[in-house]
Amino acid sequence: MAEQKPIRVGLLGAGTVGSQTARLLVEQQDELAQRIGRPIELSGIACLDPDEVNFPWIDKSLLTTDTMSVVKNADIVVELIGGTGVARTFVLEALNNGASVVTANKALLAKYGPELYKAAEDNNVDIYFEAAVGGAIPIVRPLRESLVGDQVKSMLGIVNGTTNYILDEMTTKGLDFDVALKEAQEKGYAEADPTGDIEGYDAANKAAIMATLGFHTNVGIDDVTVEGITHITADDIAAATAEGKVVKLLAVVDHTDDGVSARVYPALIRQEHPLASVHGSFNAVFVRAEYADDLMFYGRGAGGAPTASAVVGDIVTVARHITAGCTGPAIRMYNDYPIAPLSSAKASFAVRFLIHDKPGVLLQVAKEFADRGISINGVNQDLKPTATEPGYDGEIQQLRLVTHMTDETTLRDAVEAVCKLDSVTGEPSIIRVLD
Amino acid sequence: MAEQKPIRVGLLGAGTVGSQTARLLVEQQDELAQRIGRPIELSGIACLDPDEVNFPWIDKSLLTTDTMSVVKNADIVVELIGGTGVARTFVLEALNNGASVVTANKALLAKYGPELYKAAEDNNVDIYFEAAVGGAIPIVRPLRESLVGDQVKSMLGIVNGTTNYILDEMTTKGLDFDVALKEAQEKGYAEADPTGDIEGYDAANKAAIMATLGFHTNVGIDDVTVEGITHITADDIAAATAEGKVVKLLAVVDHTDDGVSARVYPALIRQEHPLASVHGSFNAVFVRAEYADDLMFYGRGAGGAPTASAVVGDIVTVARHITAGCTGPAIRMYNDYPIAPLSSAKASFAVRFLIHDKPGVLLQVAKEFADRGISINGVNQDLKPTATEPGYDGEIQQLRLVTHMTDETTLRDAVEAVCKLDSVTGEPSIIRVLD
Repeated sequence: MAEQKPIRVGLLGAGTVGSQTARLLVEQQDELAQRIGRPIELSGIACLDPDEVNFPWIDKSLLTTDTMSVVKNADIVVELIGGTGVARTFVLEALNNGASVVTANKALLAKYGPELYKAAEDNNVDIYFEAAVGGAIPIVRPLRESLVGDQVKSMLGIVNGTTNYILDEMTTKGLDFDVALKEAQEKGYAEADPTGDIEGYDAANKAAIMATLGFHTNVGIDDVTVEGITHITADDIAAATAEGKVVKLLAVVDHTDDGVSARVYPALIRQEHPLASVHGSFNAVFVRAEYADDLMFYGRGAGGAPTASAVVGDIVTVARHITAGCTGPAIRMYNDYPIAPLSSAKASFAVRFLIHDKPGVLLQVAKEFADRGISINGVNQDLKPTATEPGYDGEIQQLRLVTHMTDETTLRDAVEAVCKLDSVTGEPSIIRVLD
Repeated sequence: MAEQKPIRVGLLGAGTVGSQTARLLVEQQDELAQRIGRPIELSGIACLDPDEVNFPWIDKSLLTTDTMSVVKNADIVVELIGGTGVARTFVLEALNNGASVVTANKALLAKYGPELYKAAEDNNVDIYFEAAVGGAIPIVRPLRESLVGDQVKSMLGIVNGTTNYILDEMTTKGLDFDVALKEAQEKGYAEADPTGDIEGYDAANKAAIMATLGFHTNVGIDDVTVEGITHITADDIAAATAEGKVVKLLAVVDHTDDGVSARVYPALIRQEHPLASVHGSFNAVFVRAEYADDLMFYGRGAGGAPTASAVVGDIVTVARHITAGCTGPAIRMYNDYPIAPLSSAKASFAVRFLIHDKPGVLLQVAKEFADRGISINGVNQDLKPTATEPGYDGEIQQLRLVTHMTDETTLRDAVEAVCKLDSVTGEPSIIRVLD
């Protein structure tokens, strides 16, 4: 094996994931050579400031600010820069230069996936991205390969650790969203600018990738309907707990006769549901397929070492393809399904109003729902609102109801009508219920 | 695409899985051609009696009793015969004939894996077997590819649906093993000869495959220590329930400084453990890796359609390799780890004795354990034995204790000594406790 020319791996980025990727490649050099059948070598590491990168396993002479030189001198380019700006330039350059690409960049794939997949196919090189969805969890490869003999019908995932952590803290400590977010930021679980996580955009990127791979059709980030968790209050969580449920931010992709849909929203799920016990930074993805039936994949959704494990798994796969001379198994999006209209998505909703309880209120509320053909599954007034609830005045009560299946447009219309009633005050809360 | 020569797929076996595999291949013919980039065609189906095979999607002219002719006229041979006899002959013939092989045959791989992997490598063809472990669950491919940049430390799985169903029934209905087995047989969840399942041999085959793939070393069926569930009584289950635990049959593989180990045994696990909520015919495999940390894979472990989903996923993968001209990514067992001696496996044990309660009994029992350096974690005498318990005479009581970590040899020595005490009667029960 000593005489074989090593496969050159160029890293773009030397942050948390980049440095751990370098560590795995260096520490396991001999073992990886055995697994591939040919040695690999780190040929360069592009970073913003080489002086700031100090890890015992990183040979300082590999560090450079000249990203393009790393791109041009590698057989496999590992893009860990993130974002949709220069990352796109470098990935395209690598592919067009005949190098294969491994990336963990979900935003890049959700926005420019088709362009990148085509560039890989045109140049007969690989593009692998296991770490872009679910961190260390093998979910991309099972979708690309294991389930390729089946028909995926839907997927349901907890794919953002930050929001999962915040919702956990709200649940166990009874915190309001703002307090829990601040705590998460102090502990390093949320970024200084948490928008991408808490507004659901990170999960939306992953939903777009899941839908594209699962349904073999192009679903981009702009096709994803997104609702974050910023509107979830301590009272929403208390109401969920009282009903034996928890609130989780879900990425949901579906394929029905109306087309495909990719959505991100917080939802109430039963405490017995396997996804209810996915806590903290762990992620999980549920897949329902025509023949395989239900599958679940669970593991660390983020973190340097777990993400690097997925990245290096991809590097080995690509290196094996290079060794065998067969890179370029294309990502085929041969379907051209329409994006299902929002109105086609039926769901059960938990709605919470703040009311001044007078005789006849419930009747009025019920009428607005009945007039729009929405059936009510249950009504509850047993929980007092907390003082931090918007609209709280010491007198108001909570009226909670759960609907049968309806579409969101009709539901919001009914809720708007209810909010115009004299006895109703404050902001209503609307959360989907997973059946 | 119409002009491309189709890839010929020959099926050996037309039973539950074989007929469903044929169905997926036929019903999804166009879609699979898109996914592969080249059409595939069913070239022959070998079965024992063509007159008995009646499925609307199976073209009767493909059925034959001449298995070897199917083997010789296929690019991909799908072995669904089972067992380690003729299956081996046909698989070797296929590989040596230049065909790739897809199989669901865990017994064949656990016994003759190295021979078959070598034949595949020598002939530069593929051998894929996702369905051999965990049915529809993608676990083989993640081990072969996703985790290939990591170091697997241990795996823990519920990989036999029959025993899982029986233990579930014993738990929810308070049944004794014999009764639950009979019920499972009547409902078709257990075979007429259930030995392979209830004695743990089926799980042992899967443990051997998991260890081989996870540790890149050869672990055969004879290297696996096996304990089935036939000795589990209703009282064991009742004691587990009283302690907030459930009994599950586990396949456990480990890599430590002492070598690798593959074991199958029933164990007590906490009700909060994710594996505790794996019920009926569902399977789940927990993987702990150096960098990825904990991963779990969950899904249908058996059944015609789910297993066929995994088989067809393999067929598509192999067909893509054939199309790209790069079959033969070898299964490399470059490590030569010793099998760890039984004495190296430390565990906590729950031991249950039947005793005639006289003053000093507990002291005597405690002494036998203490003399052998085994610490006791807890002692309990609160549950009365049921009348079906072997040794029951209306007077006896149960003495249950849980040890701290010890090895099985020392533990069994202590238990034997205790059983010689005058006050101790009947058969002791020993079950591992998962920490």
